[in-house]
Amino acid sequence: MPSPKTQPARGMRDFLPADVRKREYVISVIKQVYERYGFEPLETPAVENIETLMGKYGEEGNQLIFKILKRGEHASTGEADLALRYDLTVPLARVVAQYQNELPKFFKRYQIQPVWRADRPARGRFREFYQCDVDVLGTSSPVVEAELCAAVSDVLESLGFTNFTIRLNHRRLLDAMMRNAMIETERSAGVLVVIDKLDKIGKDGVSSELAKLGVSERSTETILHLMTDQDPDDPARLGHPFEFSQDNVKANLERITLQYQKFKYFSATSEGNVAASEAIGNLTRIIELSQNGSAAKHIRIDTSLARGLSYYTGAIMEINVPDLAGSLGGGGRYDNLVGMFLGKDVPACGFSLGLERILVVMDERGMFQGRLENSPADVMVTVWDEESIPEALKLAAEIRNEDLRVMFYPEVRKPAKQLFYADKQKIRSVIIVGPNEVESGNFRIKDRRKGEHVLPRREIGVTLRKWFDEDVQNARARREGFAKIVAGNEPPEQE
Amino acid sequence: MPSPKTQPARGMRDFLPADVRKREYVISVIKQVYERYGFEPLETPAVENIETLMGKYGEEGNQLIFKILKRGEHASTGEADLALRYDLTVPLARVVAQYQNELPKFFKRYQIQPVWRADRPARGRFREFYQCDVDVLGTSSPVVEAELCAAVSDVLESLGFTNFTIRLNHRRLLDAMMRNAMIETERSAGVLVVIDKLDKIGKDGVSSELAKLGVSERSTETILHLMTDQDPDDPARLGHPFEFSQDNVKANLERITLQYQKFKYFSATSEGNVAASEAIGNLTRIIELSQNGSAAKHIRIDTSLARGLSYYTGAIMEINVPDLAGSLGGGGRYDNLVGMFLGKDVPACGFSLGLERILVVMDERGMFQGRLENSPADVMVTVWDEESIPEALKLAAEIRNEDLRVMFYPEVRKPAKQLFYADKQKIRSVIIVGPNEVESGNFRIKDRRKGEHVLPRREIGVTLRKWFDEDVQNARARREGFAKIVAGNEPPEQE
Repeated sequence: MPSPKTQPARGMRDFLPADVRKREYVISVIKQVYERYGFEPLETPAVENIETLMGKYGEEGNQLIFKILKRGEHASTGEADLALRYDLTVPLARVVAQYQNELPKFFKRYQIQPVWRADRPARGRFREFYQCDVDVLGTSSPVVEAELCAAVSDVLESLGFTNFTIRLNHRRLLDAMMRNAMIETERSAGVLVVIDKLDKIGKDGVSSELAKLGVSERSTETILHLMTDQDPDDPARLGHPFEFSQDNVKANLERITLQYQKFKYFSATSEGNVAASEAIGNLTRIIELSQNGSAAKHIRIDTSLARGLSYYTGAIMEINVPDLAGSLGGGGRYDNLVGMFLGKDVPACGFSLGLERILVVMDERGMFQGRLENSPADVMVTVWDEESIPEALKLAAEIRNEDLRVMFYPEVRKPAKQLFYADKQKIRSVIIVGPNEVESGNFRIKDRRKGEHVLPRREIGVTLRKWFDEDVQNARARREGFAKIVAGNEPPEQE
Repeated sequence: MPSPKTQPARGMRDFLPADVRKREYVISVIKQVYERYGFEPLETPAVENIETLMGKYGEEGNQLIFKILKRGEHASTGEADLALRYDLTVPLARVVAQYQNELPKFFKRYQIQPVWRADRPARGRFREFYQCDVDVLGTSSPVVEAELCAAVSDVLESLGFTNFTIRLNHRRLLDAMMRNAMIETERSAGVLVVIDKLDKIGKDGVSSELAKLGVSERSTETILHLMTDQDPDDPARLGHPFEFSQDNVKANLERITLQYQKFKYFSATSEGNVAASEAIGNLTRIIELSQNGSAAKHIRIDTSLARGLSYYTGAIMEINVPDLAGSLGGGGRYDNLVGMFLGKDVPACGFSLGLERILVVMDERGMFQGRLENSPADVMVTVWDEESIPEALKLAAEIRNEDLRVMFYPEVRKPAKQLFYADKQKIRSVIIVGPNEVESGNFRIKDRRKGEHVLPRREIGVTLRKWFDEDVQNARARREGFAKIVAGNEPPEQE
């Protein structure tokens, strides 16, 4: 009987085999794509010195960090000296500072590991969750932003996503907007949080929330004018695929030009407009560099995108799909974070994909169907008496040498019971091993697709290998058909 | 300048790309072998409720558990409600109790995840380290012990190990020995710790340590008589390969028979001897079931093997290699642990491989040589001016479509500087993209093996793909040659 004491801790999850297979499939696609872009794997410890993490994520972040009690004689002090990793960016900054002489000039790393946050658990929000980060350190070239957008587009397309949008904005453009709207620096973070909700609450909602914050009507008007380059209710704005990539690039460049003109109009605060002009130049270059790649048709300048984290200094990005509130991932340029550890700045830019959210959407859309193993083994070897077991084990080992997954029924039980078990476990082929089979050297195989066959021992491994190879080819054909259906946004066929 | 604040926490490690590649290679071999035996992946959270872990690992274990401070208003109490995973066996027992209705009758799972222990760090001993566990639940059949020994043998042989020994003993045999030697139950754990050191300190060392514990001479004599089936200084005893598996099986069965006769001699404590007799029967069957598999030539009955953990109830195993003090892994049967969570017992048996120790030995022996990527990319695309970058990015994307790993040099720098970077990063092929190349559509490729070639754009991807496929075949041939050298225990050739 399950009891509270056998449940995982609050907000944490156990992953049974079918869950792990989904997670590993998505992770393997992400890794493969990132490797193709020349990114290399990095891993850091789950546990960091507490001072490495404190003060890097704002006051709210400090509260959400899991802290580890000192040990031994210090345990009774109730003090913490260690803490669980809260994201993968701060440990990266520490690593770059620590190993700067061992790392290449342009350090391109990916890191796929869990992080822990003492957040209130909710649907899709867990206290242990995986982040899939990809970052480039050592250059401020906009090639990096373009490559990151292309790489995450490749990841999502490889997983079967088509209708996602990569929203793009610039932290310095946001800063300039705040200045032009006469928002004091210390209040701008709060104002940006409100503006980030424009999609959800609309212009009126933003106006009333800003009024509550004490922002003047004039300032609100300026902000809304600068932030909304087009009607926020425009259905093309979020999560809808663009038909022609060249048109999308053109539309983005037009949007940027419009933005630039608006800024020129606010000539009163020229300092802010120089920054804005540089930011607009940077965004223009990112769009240009993306025009030939897989991100071209997904990228979209969105001047209302804010992103919460305070360490961003340049371009910021976020990925959305229509059927999920919140984002599948996001990132941006953070040229000052490494300096907090190293004492001198190292330019850096990165992207983080949220594994849990990708899994939620893929599950709900049935995108795993036909892609994953649903059985613990390809073949099961049965046993009818104790005496046959050594020979049956030998046969199992021979089939494993053909790189097939073989389950050995561990107990002598009625044949019907063993066959029922194989069936329940969806194991495709079952081999009957009793005293007659051992004596004659001929074994009966019951295969879900090929029916019943009697084969001499030496032929069993190669025959099964051949059957499964055919099956892989069939599966690939089925999967490709399936991928086409997904691409067309129709519901997948039931098997 | 590296500083204490950029180092990982005490006893924890950062893994740079070359480290991660080694770890992932070993893990992939372990997974592949375990999948072939019908084991399925399981993952559990890093963080468990503190009461799940406390009291499961003895008093010393309790001290070594990392405890997590309560959060929010309770943080100031200094109390802990959560703790970091200490091993993978206790979480497995919890999972089996929690999901018993969803799991198959015979639950065969592997789990490869980190665990944390607040041990004093030392050479090869870390506070965060990976365990690679494989367990079968739901049956007490000795087929399980035999399959586990075969699977770990397959793992180690696939990694290139040849000279390892799987020592095998039985917890109930140890209990019976203690009884026959008149050791009180409450003192037997301490006595077993001493006996476990027989390999290191010899008979005289064991005698004097037991005397210090107050064990009588008579008891010590009985223990040594029962425990040492042969001269402990016999070089065949530990870590040396056996030439003929059949001979090894025969030798083991002879050793068991001898043991049985010794027990019969101690007829005074018949209750203990019934248990011993059953244990000896169980070990005999495990040896018989191993005779046709890969474990046959590695397995060795060793009546002095004790294993620290208290939850074992049946056969116990440990793997050793000659060039490492301590073991590469170990395991055994633990039929009562699930009962601590479920209220009713579920038979279980498992094996845990220590990833860190396997890595240490493989590194020291040079066993990774020629097996792993040593470069972040296969191909580097250079850029000579800003205008060529969009075309160069397009070319990079085309080469990635051939499943090659492409580094894009992100800044416009002198060609020599870019080529030097590619060389330093050991990138095999470099493609020169300047304004002339973009205009002519012909690109120069400098390849470390094939020399310099000028190719039209459409041929570049397929040509590179062909070159790298040849290389993979060469690498495989080299690797197989290398594997043969390792098998012969000669030092690997330098490239």
